Amino acid sequence: LTQTGTLDSDARQRFADEVTAIHVSETGAPIEFVNVIFPELPEGRAFRAGKVADKAIIQAWIRAGRTDEVRHNIIQRVSDAYLELTGTDPMHVLVVVEDAPSSHIMEGGQIAPEPNPEAEKAWFAKQQTAGTPA
Amino acid sequence: LTQTGTLDSDARQRFADEVTAIHVSETGAPIEFVNVIFPELPEGRAFRAGKVADKAIIQAWIRAGRTDEVRHNIIQRVSDAYLELTGTDPMHVLVVVEDAPSSHIMEGGQIAPEPNPEAEKAWFAKQQTAGTPA
Amino acid sequence: LTQTGTLDSDARQRFADEVTAIHVSETGAPIEFVNVIFPELPEGRAFRAGKVADKAIIQAWIRAGRTDEVRHNIIQRVSDAYLELTGTDPMHVLVVVEDAPSSHIMEGGQIAPEPNPEAEKAWFAKQQTAGTPA
Repeated sequence: LTQTGTLDSDARQRFADEVTAIHVSETGAPIEFVNVIFPELPEGRAFRAGKVADKAIIQAWIRAGRTDEVRHNIIQRVSDAYLELTGTDPMHVLVVVEDAPSSHIMEGGQIAPEPNPEAEKAWFAKQQTAGTPA
Repeated sequence: LTQTGTLDSDARQRFADEVTAIHVSETGAPIEFVNVIFPELPEGRAFRAGKVADKAIIQAWIRAGRTDEVRHNIIQRVSDAYLELTGTDPMHVLVVVEDAPSSHIMEGGQIAPEPNPEAEKAWFAKQQTAGTPA
Repeated sequence: LTQTGTLDSDARQRFADEVTAIHVSETGAPIEFVNVIFPELPEGRAFRAGKVADKAIIQAWIRAGRTDEVRHNIIQRVSDAYLELTGTDPMHVLVVVEDAPSSHIMEGGQIAPEPNPEAEKAWFAKQQTAGTPA
């Protein structure tokens, strides 16, 4: 979540590419599982310490079961990527990476696989046999 | 969360009706506890696998304490309802149902009741004696 | 999250001041750690009990590790502050305060400190020596 106008369409594409590459390289998950969205708020809608601030809040959900090290690497690399892309003051950038158990998630009409290659491969195989894409 | 223009006001009403009916039938909770909101993002603000995508992300919170079966039924039925309403490609629809403990939630100025009929009935009774609706 | 037009810029400043003061007084955390944002939804995008409603949904994250009493006080006071500011029907106001472990959060390029004064002081000291603000 950024202030309106902070990221243009080129910057969004570059940041989405970075986040996608980071997630895949840190977790080994299939690239199709990485969704990135860019909500915005008009100026004057974010406050820090009671004062209007130009804040970037990057909130992510990963499937529960990753190691602390993987999570830490994701947080650090996403934060670094955003800071390098925008050159903004680091104190204006907040990154939160939360867990969601696979059993709480559905995509393509199927409960998400546990975060390991075997489960993910089985998930995709089932998806393709079930698929009647619109 | 959908791309701007995906759901018109009629589709929103129908999907809100479906989600409300699903929650009440699966959990037995009072209908007044079901809130449904429809945030939107302009085109080009959602990416999947690094590419711009027309994604529907349906994120829900239920009070902690439901069985896995209830949660699974809610996820499956909400996903099915959205797919039937819109006819979209299932891979574009992501549903996440997370837990929030009742003690973390306040509505009507009172902490939310535990998810069972006795607690919910007591909550409403207290609400009505306390109530000075605006 | 409120319906567009519910809070003008003066009301947002006042509510941000209240939330900031409540968080600092209940937790003793540094004021710089309090971020408040005001997303909005156009009319007709929120439903309660299947009917269009003018709903205020106040969702907050605090670092995990606070006592139940601190959380309860925060929820109650934030709810009270919003009701007093707006005079709205209490049943239209939903407050949710969730936990996020410090290790899941990064600000200023550093993992957030545990929620205690020693850790917070050490965090700020490190921040200032590391700092090359843009």
